[in-house]
Formats: sequence, C-alpha cells, structure tokens
Amino acid sequence: MASTMTRTIFFEDLFVGQTFRSAAIEMTAEEIIRFARDNDPQFFHVDAEAAKESLFGGLVASGWQTASLTLRLILTESGMTFSGGVVGAEARVAWKGPVRPGDRLHVEGEITKTVASRSRPDRGFASFRATTFNQKGTAVQTIEATMLVFRDPARNDDQKRRS
Amino acid sequence: MASTMTRTIFFEDLFVGQTFRSAAIEMTAEEIIRFARDNDPQFFHVDAEAAKESLFGGLVASGWQTASLTLRLILTESGMTFSGGVVGAEARVAWKGPVRPGDRLHVEGEITKTVASRSRPDRGFASFRATTFNQKGTAVQTIEATMLVFRDPARNDDQKRRS
Repeated sequence: MASTMTRTIFFEDLFVGQTFRSAAIEMTAEEIIRFARDNDPQFFHVDAEAAKESLFGGLVASGWQTASLTLRLILTESGMTFSGGVVGAEARVAWKGPVRPGDRLHVEGEITKTVASRSRPDRGFASFRATTFNQKGTAVQTIEATMLVFRDPARNDDQKRRS
Repeated sequence: MASTMTRTIFFEDLFVGQTFRSAAIEMTAEEIIRFARDNDPQFFHVDAEAAKESLFGGLVASGWQTASLTLRLILTESGMTFSGGVVGAEARVAWKGPVRPGDRLHVEGEITKTVASRSRPDRGFASFRATTFNQKGTAVQTIEATMLVFRDPARNDDQKRRS
C-alpha cells in the first residue's frame, strides 16, 4: 500500500527487491483527447465518434500518455519524493491493453538494480520493473526503466568514509 | 529525404531495410512546459528559472514528450500516411541528451522486421529503429519499437491467392 506520508528518497534509500505501489488516478476522455491532440493525433485517440470504427471500438489513450502517467504515479503518488528529480536514462515499454476514458490506473513495481555512478559521486542509477493496472486489475502496460537518482548530500561524507 | 508527397502506407508496403526521414519540428518552451505540467511535472521540465539549478542547467523536455514527438514525426512528417492508424505494441527508448527550447528535431530510421499476423489476416507487425536528432546533428534519443500496421483491404484478395 502507498504510504500516506511522503518520504524523501535518495539513491542510497533504494535497494533491489524494494516494492512500491501508487495510488490510482482516473484517466478522463478530456485528458486523453488533450494529450493526443498535441502528441499523438490519431483518430482513435482524438475523436470518440470515429474511434468506434477503430480496432479499439472506442476512444483510447495514447501509449505515451500511459507511459508518462506511470512515471508520474511513481514520482508523485507512491509516497516517495525524489530530491532533485528523477531523470530517465532508458525505458522498455509494452502496451498490453487499451486505456479507456474513466479507467483508474495505479502502478505496482519493484527495484531491480542499483548502480552507483563511478564518475559522479553525487548520483546513481536505479532500475525498476512496474506494471500499470486498471480498476479491473487488468495489466494495461509493463515498463522496465533505468533512471538517474541523486544521493543525499547530507549523507555524502558518511558514504565516502564507508567506501 | 522526406517525400514532398504523402503516400498511404499499408503493411505490405513495408520491407526490412526500408529507410525513412522526417521533416524537422521545433520544440518550444511553451510546449515543453505544457506537456510537463500535465504529464511529467518535474522542476526542470516546468520552471525555466528553477531548471537553471538542475543538472541540465536549464529547461529541458520530458523524455516522454521526445518519444511521442518522434512517433508523431514518423506518422505525420515522413511522407508516409498509415491507413487505419498505427498502434504501438512495445518500444525501447534511450534518452541520449537533453532537448531544449528552440531545438529542431527530426527522425531518421529504418524498418528492421515485418511479421504478418497469423490470427488476423488484415494486419501485421512492423519493427523499426530510429534516431531523433537536433539541429546540431546530435542524437538526443534512440528508439526501437514494434507497431501494428494494417494491410490494404483492396489488395487482400491478391495476398490470399499468393499465399
């Protein structure tokens, strides 16, 4: 379960096997259309009426919107706050099923790897695997990603002494 | 070079080794901030002043914005029109460098695999590898993706007779 309190997370707080779970956010038709008009203007993402004739049978969210929402859920709705922000290095995304207006999405995931940067002592790379579920418990997307995460400046001296 | 005429592309028009190149689109500060407010509200994506203190030294686009723009460039600015739309199945994205306000991005890529659907004779899957470049010729992103593409209904009878 997501913590009700937000905790500031640094690279040294992450460990392999650590799990996380976000709160759920609803995807509205308005948000689907707004995203798609700017970023992925295909008819099944922008026109609810025309989308009925598509292979989806109705309006669906762009896969890129689901991908960015997944990261947003992890960064802002999982009880973790990453100081200094998180920067994506790479991501592998698989879209498993449609996201439709009114779907409520949440993310469940696990840290799979942590690697301290050799050249920059203030940061490291953390990899995770996460699945995005709708309100029926159906997996709509999986993602494996690696992101740059900063270390805690206040703990840096300790880190150096230990290593 | 991108064709000046748009050509409707179906699955049977794609072949391994086929290359494409899109026209360039400028990424503005306004677009970077608008995307990020909705989808990736980290300070280096939404606040030009605060972003100066980030590892980027200034405002940069969300990686998801670059990824979706890349697909949009392929779908709308490469001289190809995909009838019935294109649906992403999976994608592997690597972010190589920052995209800053005023950068003009274009995409160069190649079809790497085509697989006809066994269960659905009206479609197939095409994989491609593409690099997104800025106006200096720097690769800011690479992507390998697989997408569902429809066959030409008008050619379906021929396809069936040949196979």
